[in-house]
Amino acid sequence: MRIVVLAGGIGGARFLRGLKAAEPEADITVIGNTGDDIHLFGLKVCPDLDTVMYTLGGGIHEEQGWGRADESFSVKSELAAYGVGPEWFGLGDRDFATHIVRTQMTQAGYPLSAVTEALCARWQPGIRLIPMTDDRVETHVLIDTPAEGRKAVHFQEYWVRLHAAVDAHAVVPVGAEQAKPAPGVLEAIAAADVILFPPSNPVVSIGTILAVPGIREAIAEAGVPVVGLSPIVGGAPVRGMADKVLAAVGVEATAAAVAAHYGSGLLDGWLVDTVDAASVPEVEAAGIRCRAVPLLMTDVKASATMAREALTLAEEVRA
Amino acid sequence: MRIVVLAGGIGGARFLRGLKAAEPEADITVIGNTGDDIHLFGLKVCPDLDTVMYTLGGGIHEEQGWGRADESFSVKSELAAYGVGPEWFGLGDRDFATHIVRTQMTQAGYPLSAVTEALCARWQPGIRLIPMTDDRVETHVLIDTPAEGRKAVHFQEYWVRLHAAVDAHAVVPVGAEQAKPAPGVLEAIAAADVILFPPSNPVVSIGTILAVPGIREAIAEAGVPVVGLSPIVGGAPVRGMADKVLAAVGVEATAAAVAAHYGSGLLDGWLVDTVDAASVPEVEAAGIRCRAVPLLMTDVKASATMAREALTLAEEVRA
Repeated sequence: MRIVVLAGGIGGARFLRGLKAAEPEADITVIGNTGDDIHLFGLKVCPDLDTVMYTLGGGIHEEQGWGRADESFSVKSELAAYGVGPEWFGLGDRDFATHIVRTQMTQAGYPLSAVTEALCARWQPGIRLIPMTDDRVETHVLIDTPAEGRKAVHFQEYWVRLHAAVDAHAVVPVGAEQAKPAPGVLEAIAAADVILFPPSNPVVSIGTILAVPGIREAIAEAGVPVVGLSPIVGGAPVRGMADKVLAAVGVEATAAAVAAHYGSGLLDGWLVDTVDAASVPEVEAAGIRCRAVPLLMTDVKASATMAREALTLAEEVRA
Repeated sequence: MRIVVLAGGIGGARFLRGLKAAEPEADITVIGNTGDDIHLFGLKVCPDLDTVMYTLGGGIHEEQGWGRADESFSVKSELAAYGVGPEWFGLGDRDFATHIVRTQMTQAGYPLSAVTEALCARWQPGIRLIPMTDDRVETHVLIDTPAEGRKAVHFQEYWVRLHAAVDAHAVVPVGAEQAKPAPGVLEAIAAADVILFPPSNPVVSIGTILAVPGIREAIAEAGVPVVGLSPIVGGAPVRGMADKVLAAVGVEATAAAVAAHYGSGLLDGWLVDTVDAASVPEVEAAGIRCRAVPLLMTDVKASATMAREALTLAEEVRA
């Protein structure tokens, strides 16, 4: 079975771990979000790609969900001693090595997809990880600031520095319109037996991937079941601050509203949590097959069960 | 008193610590060798500048003489896990931060002299440190290799990887002929009351600085005492492998031969170690005033005494 998964960071990575456990023989291609990539200290940092790679490769900081296990912070504290920031982005020493290798390869002329493949040669994540594009896309968030009025800030500044504590007026994947899908992305979609949207952020993770011209169209035209899992449980994001960016695109923070946001033109099936069982008829009325199942990824077993439910729903759609 | 010092790495840095102790009120400008700079992992590394900066700024690994105290090696071991080398160059985590800041500033367009000034703003070395040039100069060493025959390797590869264990046929400061002295270098020389050559390597440290067009001439024409200290004691380098590169330029590894290599056109005074007292007449016969004094920098006190002897000899020359 060939499965294509669109993934953001922590939610996508944990779902993928469950999917691998549920379908160890499946051929899984992950199209990773690069809209939250950021240049820090002259280095190219790809938080979502790394979270997927570290999680599936066994290097992730389990409790935190991002960054490396057994991490130290000598480089960061030294940079601070030089007065070089930002200090709000927590890069550890082990993590720095990844960014150093990536930057060196990028500056040597390798596209991000080739760099990602090289990094994965070490981590052996057991899936094929492809960035959504080799072109630069950078998600910006429009906010109001006391000093400068309304301005656009990098997604990471909004998310990590400001903790999404101010209203987002708009979310713009700068550069997406001019971006091309990375080599292998459209081919993987065309060859897929099923396409899954994990409970990742529908705006800044999966939404950004879909903003790369050609990807949304390829998924809609693939002719295979497309099944998603709601990142909203009981009217709030399971983790992160998805409600904040949903508001910016005028979407209510409910499982049904997120399904409608993707739309029946894209989505064939949708899993909501059991606490949102009441919304199943609303989703189905919109032309999307819907089931209510437990959607909390408390451990790999729970994530694997969710993955199985998604694949079961896909088979229902197909039949 | 305005003192200009040409410095390489460990020997130069330890001498400078003695000079500061001997003359705490002196205005000291250090012209640093950049011929051993190397790009590693996409980062610009300046070993000699950093050794001076760390030593005088209190951050040096005392026993080792280079690198940072209390160092860890997470980044390096991660790079090795990615299969990214070289592994023979020992960059620690704290040290990496320096190279990251330097590279970021360099890529933002700042010349190395401005970057060095910014790094020194943290370390407060108590001297003004200027790289010999803002242009790229890279010392190469011509060696015989079993696999590829005679070839040029980067100085660091010769020195650190090969431990200078093979014969050097030539030492070439690639790019030196086209290099210009960094801003402030010629001005400092012109304004100096005395110019000192510490017991640094006469070929790959001080020799490289003198290879930048304009520097040797400025020193010769400054009209102030120029006094050096022999890095060779009893026919062998005090530390390092200076004899290997001296052979490459056809100079014997003796205190007297190194003085003659600099020449009376450049050097007014020369300090040899007491074990080389017999060579004093030979040096003086070549027109260079010479004294035999202890030249082992066993501690700051010993280095300060050496610095005082150099300044005393400079006063004799002046008188």
